[in-house]
Amino acid sequence: MKDLIIAVIGAGSSYTPEIVEGFVQQREIIPVTKLIFMDINSDRLETIASFCRRFMRHLGHEIPIQTTTELSAAVSGANFIVTEIRVGGNQQRVLDEKIPLKYGVIGQETTGPGGMFKAFRTIPVMLNLAHEVEKLNPDAWIINYTNPTGLVTEAICKYSNAKIVGLCSGGYFPRDAVSKYLGVPKGEIFYDYFGLNHLNFAYNFTIHGRPLTDAEFDMVADHVHGGLVEKEIIKNMRLIPSPYLQYYYHHDRLVREYKEKGITRGEYVQALEKEVFAAYADPAEETKPEALKKRGGGGYSEIALDVIDAIHNNRSRPLIVNTSNQGTLRFLPNDAAIEVQCLVNASGISPIQLHDTPAGVWGLVAAVKNYEQLAVEAAVKGDRNLALQALYAHPLVGQSEIANPLLDEMLEANQRFIPQFYSH
Amino acid sequence: MKDLIIAVIGAGSSYTPEIVEGFVQQREIIPVTKLIFMDINSDRLETIASFCRRFMRHLGHEIPIQTTTELSAAVSGANFIVTEIRVGGNQQRVLDEKIPLKYGVIGQETTGPGGMFKAFRTIPVMLNLAHEVEKLNPDAWIINYTNPTGLVTEAICKYSNAKIVGLCSGGYFPRDAVSKYLGVPKGEIFYDYFGLNHLNFAYNFTIHGRPLTDAEFDMVADHVHGGLVEKEIIKNMRLIPSPYLQYYYHHDRLVREYKEKGITRGEYVQALEKEVFAAYADPAEETKPEALKKRGGGGYSEIALDVIDAIHNNRSRPLIVNTSNQGTLRFLPNDAAIEVQCLVNASGISPIQLHDTPAGVWGLVAAVKNYEQLAVEAAVKGDRNLALQALYAHPLVGQSEIANPLLDEMLEANQRFIPQFYSH
Amino acid sequence: MKDLIIAVIGAGSSYTPEIVEGFVQQREIIPVTKLIFMDINSDRLETIASFCRRFMRHLGHEIPIQTTTELSAAVSGANFIVTEIRVGGNQQRVLDEKIPLKYGVIGQETTGPGGMFKAFRTIPVMLNLAHEVEKLNPDAWIINYTNPTGLVTEAICKYSNAKIVGLCSGGYFPRDAVSKYLGVPKGEIFYDYFGLNHLNFAYNFTIHGRPLTDAEFDMVADHVHGGLVEKEIIKNMRLIPSPYLQYYYHHDRLVREYKEKGITRGEYVQALEKEVFAAYADPAEETKPEALKKRGGGGYSEIALDVIDAIHNNRSRPLIVNTSNQGTLRFLPNDAAIEVQCLVNASGISPIQLHDTPAGVWGLVAAVKNYEQLAVEAAVKGDRNLALQALYAHPLVGQSEIANPLLDEMLEANQRFIPQFYSH
Amino acid sequence: MKDLIIAVIGAGSSYTPEIVEGFVQQREIIPVTKLIFMDINSDRLETIASFCRRFMRHLGHEIPIQTTTELSAAVSGANFIVTEIRVGGNQQRVLDEKIPLKYGVIGQETTGPGGMFKAFRTIPVMLNLAHEVEKLNPDAWIINYTNPTGLVTEAICKYSNAKIVGLCSGGYFPRDAVSKYLGVPKGEIFYDYFGLNHLNFAYNFTIHGRPLTDAEFDMVADHVHGGLVEKEIIKNMRLIPSPYLQYYYHHDRLVREYKEKGITRGEYVQALEKEVFAAYADPAEETKPEALKKRGGGGYSEIALDVIDAIHNNRSRPLIVNTSNQGTLRFLPNDAAIEVQCLVNASGISPIQLHDTPAGVWGLVAAVKNYEQLAVEAAVKGDRNLALQALYAHPLVGQSEIANPLLDEMLEANQRFIPQFYSH
Repeated sequence: MKDLIIAVIGAGSSYTPEIVEGFVQQREIIPVTKLIFMDINSDRLETIASFCRRFMRHLGHEIPIQTTTELSAAVSGANFIVTEIRVGGNQQRVLDEKIPLKYGVIGQETTGPGGMFKAFRTIPVMLNLAHEVEKLNPDAWIINYTNPTGLVTEAICKYSNAKIVGLCSGGYFPRDAVSKYLGVPKGEIFYDYFGLNHLNFAYNFTIHGRPLTDAEFDMVADHVHGGLVEKEIIKNMRLIPSPYLQYYYHHDRLVREYKEKGITRGEYVQALEKEVFAAYADPAEETKPEALKKRGGGGYSEIALDVIDAIHNNRSRPLIVNTSNQGTLRFLPNDAAIEVQCLVNASGISPIQLHDTPAGVWGLVAAVKNYEQLAVEAAVKGDRNLALQALYAHPLVGQSEIANPLLDEMLEANQRFIPQFYSH
Repeated sequence: MKDLIIAVIGAGSSYTPEIVEGFVQQREIIPVTKLIFMDINSDRLETIASFCRRFMRHLGHEIPIQTTTELSAAVSGANFIVTEIRVGGNQQRVLDEKIPLKYGVIGQETTGPGGMFKAFRTIPVMLNLAHEVEKLNPDAWIINYTNPTGLVTEAICKYSNAKIVGLCSGGYFPRDAVSKYLGVPKGEIFYDYFGLNHLNFAYNFTIHGRPLTDAEFDMVADHVHGGLVEKEIIKNMRLIPSPYLQYYYHHDRLVREYKEKGITRGEYVQALEKEVFAAYADPAEETKPEALKKRGGGGYSEIALDVIDAIHNNRSRPLIVNTSNQGTLRFLPNDAAIEVQCLVNASGISPIQLHDTPAGVWGLVAAVKNYEQLAVEAAVKGDRNLALQALYAHPLVGQSEIANPLLDEMLEANQRFIPQFYSH
Repeated sequence: MKDLIIAVIGAGSSYTPEIVEGFVQQREIIPVTKLIFMDINSDRLETIASFCRRFMRHLGHEIPIQTTTELSAAVSGANFIVTEIRVGGNQQRVLDEKIPLKYGVIGQETTGPGGMFKAFRTIPVMLNLAHEVEKLNPDAWIINYTNPTGLVTEAICKYSNAKIVGLCSGGYFPRDAVSKYLGVPKGEIFYDYFGLNHLNFAYNFTIHGRPLTDAEFDMVADHVHGGLVEKEIIKNMRLIPSPYLQYYYHHDRLVREYKEKGITRGEYVQALEKEVFAAYADPAEETKPEALKKRGGGGYSEIALDVIDAIHNNRSRPLIVNTSNQGTLRFLPNDAAIEVQCLVNASGISPIQLHDTPAGVWGLVAAVKNYEQLAVEAAVKGDRNLALQALYAHPLVGQSEIANPLLDEMLEANQRFIPQFYSH
Repeated sequence: MKDLIIAVIGAGSSYTPEIVEGFVQQREIIPVTKLIFMDINSDRLETIASFCRRFMRHLGHEIPIQTTTELSAAVSGANFIVTEIRVGGNQQRVLDEKIPLKYGVIGQETTGPGGMFKAFRTIPVMLNLAHEVEKLNPDAWIINYTNPTGLVTEAICKYSNAKIVGLCSGGYFPRDAVSKYLGVPKGEIFYDYFGLNHLNFAYNFTIHGRPLTDAEFDMVADHVHGGLVEKEIIKNMRLIPSPYLQYYYHHDRLVREYKEKGITRGEYVQALEKEVFAAYADPAEETKPEALKKRGGGGYSEIALDVIDAIHNNRSRPLIVNTSNQGTLRFLPNDAAIEVQCLVNASGISPIQLHDTPAGVWGLVAAVKNYEQLAVEAAVKGDRNLALQALYAHPLVGQSEIANPLLDEMLEANQRFIPQFYSH
């Protein structure tokens, strides 16, 4: 029997047990023979590893776990390298969320200036990882969950030769919504899906090849994402947008609400994670703690397991992932990372042509991709002028009076984590 | 000697004497044998025609002027049909400027929701004109000054077979700035220029083939457009933007300033035009009144004369005009109207390839073009849903909480001039 | 249980029993409830139908067969309409093979002038069928085996709205060769495949994601297609071409050999078919006659069954079929039919992006597609000038001294079957 | 007064006096202050230089001529570097013409295998020149007449940063034919022109913007190029092809005629050049010798003078030249050299968009460009396999039985001039 070794980079994440649970559940299809957990925080690493061992024993299928704080040790022997790092931790995330609000701009982990600074902190670390993979283990696949996954994927595709696929569970949201609100098996539902990570749209829905009726579409529109994007927009465009589109279509309202709320998502998660980690650390705990449900990201591992299945077993599966455009969306550069349905198998990731491109939203996708390309270049070069251009290009910023002071404050707040901007 | 007949549609405009002056000055190159003035306002028409006759006598070269209120009479015999109409007049313009401000959005004649409603009022009238030209005089050229010239040009290219070129003096701004601030003859200055009407960028400047030095570029950047777009942006990007980019890069500040100012540009122009028309109506007045200088638009006729020269005399001239994209800007649809340098001669208008496309602004151009395409379709179909999509697509609106009430108020305020939205 | 009805148009073909055998073998996956056999030759139709009933009884699974000579009766109730017609029969095929040889051009069923005249005879009949499907049964899929399948598919995509997919077993040849000569399971083999029907190339071979070594590729090259295309060419280009490429890379040699041989493939098949049909007509015969093996086309039905499985069961499968380009091969027009790997499911046929395009053969593909587009237009319009242009565009003709007399002789020889060329 | 220095590389060519004559005639527009003549053959160099001095004295305007056999001396000080070299001389040309005929393929200086070997001999020499220009004089323009100009231009654009424009008088042929046969001034004639050097087509003709009538087009078609391409083809396609298309549309007939004729064009030119050089060497000769008229290439210098005028005087002129595609012809790679109308001025060469692309010939252009790209790469790398692929890709070869022995014989016959193929 052939070895199948999975490395998890940033394994000290509270999400790790869910990935482990996925491997246990899918053991017939994805027979993992060893897990390598790597994290720079050895305390969290050991807490999570110990819990995962108890959890697997409880589930009745134990996969050996090796822990390490050395990147090279982790990446050199694995078939798949799952990355879920968070440079600067939730502390920096909270700043990403809070600083933009001061300037009337949404503060969010991946959308807007917060996402740009997350990219600034993360891209150099991920590029270093990619170069290690290139050097030590070039056949391995990087299964990237590290956010902002679109920018990270684009940076690695442009600046390394490592194999990477960028994941997000968002590609399944439209399927799951149609299934839930129309009572249709998931496997019968297909749709065109186009755009970027957290900036995408699903349309041309079919159930076993039959287009949805207007009434069916409206039924889904009435409920999808709990109304985060208002249903009239969805019905008007006949597209199901990513829930992150709320930050565009309802920007100023959300800025007001976030300011009023005071506590940010990051702060809430910080508190929750204390609770979750306390549970993980409890030697008596051998199942997922209750608090984890409030954490969000359920079903988080599904797309990773599907991708690993498709590659490891060379099963050709159409899956929605982030990869290089290469002419698929003709209004974007060839080297842009996009999130579309791709055929995935052992030979790699190949985008599948869309039936058509929706008339109402390609300009927004282009505008955000322009921002993303500038942000990736700024992240790699540590160039403040490019960072400023990225903010000018971002549809949620775009203005000098906002971009300049916002950039200055965020650069300073991130100084410790973005040495590339301070080494000239 | 062959006849050369120019029709001016909307000839009751205060700009008409400047066009006439241009024909007088260029009479050696463009030997106009008759002018046909058409306007639906016969009073203004006769005032302007009488003044122009006195003005030409004063200038020492009298071209016969025929006046008419019948469109078909005007278009049927002309070689060139210059259009400069303003449906709804300055009264509606003032509403275009004022209503958006209430919602925190710039109120402007051509940029943003104001421009969209100007398009809604204007496109059906211009399409009717184009169909008359197709029917009665298909070899004639429509020389369109009617704003928003990009949207009007795109609508006519899509929905008629009339020959049209969309003009704006903005294409000469970068040349004139380089010439003025560096003391270089205009004819030695070339640059790439790309984008849409009122949303364009000039770059790759050369003087007799030699690229501008950084110091030279900065000298121009320090003065161009009187700082309407702040010079740091210009220097960072190394592009000279259209002055209309101020509405993007300084949006919220201008909204505040416009609100504080109280009086809009349209109101100012209304007052000024009273003064100008009083002068025109004075039988003793035979030169351009002083007040006209305050009106703006000096040099307004230069590009029209250059285009007519290039076509009439079959002189191949590279001129910056609005025409159909047809693959020139690869990130935009083929049927998008764009504003780029084209070769103009009797055979038509052919875009000239750019040396490259600037990395920082293509996304904004795409976003605004997406808005424009939706707005053109909404204008032709009178479809409120498309109008709403257009506002969602516009980078200066984009939000449901703004778009919906703004649209409702503007539709009502324009009801009399947009029957296509009320006839379903 | 839901009905699944398959119509076979041109069911009097000697291939029909193989399709029937396929449905019997795949009955668990494709549970056909009725077969409708349609042919304009009622004798052959009844012979085949009777044999198929005996054959199915012998195989132990009897699907009811309905016979008809009415197209509308056949297409109105079926879920899938398998077309395998041959307008003009093998008599005309023999002329397609013989006439070009006189002019030093290969005579072949689908390649060169023979294929063009087959298209001229076939496209009007197939377009009529497509229009019937559009009118009577627009949700049905046309599963087209009718040759030249690329030209037929392009004509139907351009001139009707019927759903069609163009099939050829050639897409499996490279897989089968790698499997056979390297002893690898077929399911582990992937490759890029690009081009047109009978003018395609496979490359970038992988076995479970691992690229073939040079030695492995050379081993395949040494044997594939029995050397019809010489192995040095295959090794030099590192592409496996369709065997039809022999008509290009060895054209003059084959013309000489075909002339020497005297008897054409069509004549051989005619003789063989007499034998086969005699066997079919024998009431005692209930298995496939020996002579059929010599007929070729074994495995003929595999791709049809795979496509029907993928659509009927909404299983997303990557299959090599003919469909509309829509930007997949950027050097060909969007409306060109191409033969590439597509994702096939109930929602339709979506081309999958290639990893790259081989540097050595895109020009040949473009040249033949240019011929094909002209030939399709000539077939639809019955325009001799376009037919002549098609021959000029064809890399195997290209010359006036050949094209003109060849076209005249072939037009005359086909007069009875190409009324569109004689009705002006 | 500013210096304007022209270097002529390969100045020992019999064409040089015509270029000199052009500079004398255009001295008001192009005030050349010095000519630098460079040739590796010092005898021919001095003969030509002496004749040119006498010729200029006779013409009444003497430009100083400096002679040199050093490339670096020639290129370092010039504003424009006119290249007209012939590596291997007419001796090798005769082999290019004769060897292919043995294999039934046209033998021609620029078309087919002859042109490929000319490229193999020439590209390394021209690339060396380009690298010298890059190093010593990067602002200078290479005005390339060296054939095959399309392949040379593509090689230099791909493998150096020197400024180059590839010239051929063929772009003026359609204009001159329309002017001559319809009696219209040249300046009133415009047309779309697309393709490659010696493989191009003119269409969409207008006279002062008015499309040619069918009768007018047919009148031109009846006479253009003296029937080298038969007029029925021209009328059918409504395109005026380059006369070199005769080698495609009448290939086999011309092979027969050339074989019968025995003496090749190269041999004729060799004999003629002896006569011409004898005249040049005669100290009494001070005008162009009679024999030169038989040499062909009259009007040879017109396009060079137009290009130098457009660049030196920064006059924007639309001129047909060879330059990099960059998206102009969408069915060809971006880095392909193409021959189209470009705007030429001091800022460089910018292709102008065509109104449309003719339906009948893009595939042939693609096929030949595919050959050209392979040939350029083979020339630079000295790779026999690529040379073979180039012949497979060439529509006039394409076959293994021809390509292999032909390639072997031509490689051997050129051995002395293609060291890159023999140094591995």
